[in-house]
Amino acid sequence: MEKIELSKAFTLIEPGPVVLVTTNNGEKNNVMTISWTMVMDFTPVFAITTGAWNYSFAALRETRECVISIPTVEMLDKVIGVGTSSGADTDKFEKFMLTPVPGEHVQAPLIKECIANIECRVIDIVKKHNIVVLEGVAAYFDDSRKEKRTVHAVGDGTFIVDGRKLSRKKLMRSKIPAGI
Amino acid sequence: MEKIELSKAFTLIEPGPVVLVTTNNGEKNNVMTISWTMVMDFTPVFAITTGAWNYSFAALRETRECVISIPTVEMLDKVIGVGTSSGADTDKFEKFMLTPVPGEHVQAPLIKECIANIECRVIDIVKKHNIVVLEGVAAYFDDSRKEKRTVHAVGDGTFIVDGRKLSRKKLMRSKIPAGI
Repeated sequence: MEKIELSKAFTLIEPGPVVLVTTNNGEKNNVMTISWTMVMDFTPVFAITTGAWNYSFAALRETRECVISIPTVEMLDKVIGVGTSSGADTDKFEKFMLTPVPGEHVQAPLIKECIANIECRVIDIVKKHNIVVLEGVAAYFDDSRKEKRTVHAVGDGTFIVDGRKLSRKKLMRSKIPAGI
Repeated sequence: MEKIELSKAFTLIEPGPVVLVTTNNGEKNNVMTISWTMVMDFTPVFAITTGAWNYSFAALRETRECVISIPTVEMLDKVIGVGTSSGADTDKFEKFMLTPVPGEHVQAPLIKECIANIECRVIDIVKKHNIVVLEGVAAYFDDSRKEKRTVHAVGDGTFIVDGRKLSRKKLMRSKIPAGI
């Protein structure tokens, strides 16, 4: 799990993969599955839609910290397990055999099994719309993995796996931030 | 282009495809490419990140209407053309040979070449974060297409094409809204 330039972290979320979001409420780690995410700025800033219906929300609101962890396709059943159970009555790191790894900036843990992790601070909560606005403060990517494909939730119980990658770098030059 | 149940429209956006967003300012049609989108509710409600830096924003703000159109992979170069030019000086429907089709609820046009279209009303603009909140009011899907694969922008000039689809409908049962 190598640190990558923070300016590249938005490229982990922009394609729209299902992600895990970890928190630590001062007593224990927790993790939830989130598909409703959005890049808001290259710096990077992200939005996630969540609220009091998620047990993790209290920790997000109180600690104002989390980690966005990006799983690959072979983790899909764990990701679904995390998304269909609650930290209120389950130690999800233990149950789904996820390995917490300390971050540098936040108490919420990175997840060793994920291909990428982004340490985040909560910079705003837009209560009216249940949007939590996150600023990425450090990003990590495990480039040594053979399996790099992420999954995209459809919302009907099916998931689309990443297929081939097409390059349009020349056509896109005017829209790519410096250093990317 | 058949109408589909509105309750299923969120499944078009949840996987995170690059989309086109059309507007009509009362004088002419326009279209922009957007990758920064998020589902916010099943009803459906969507967020897009945009602001005054996009020419389309004035029409969105004034008419409070748009259409989210979802292109498939063979449209990628048109999608990039739309995303790297401006409606301020270009008739993008003409230049990129997109066919506007009248919707039922909004003046902004559907795009015939796209596999899906969602007529939307702007229900809020969160100025502080450049978020436009959209409510879907009608949705359409062209199931007769052979090519159904969408594309996901990475943000570095590359695009991930949809790969295979995995079903986890049984595991996900508790999380799938009724009727989906």
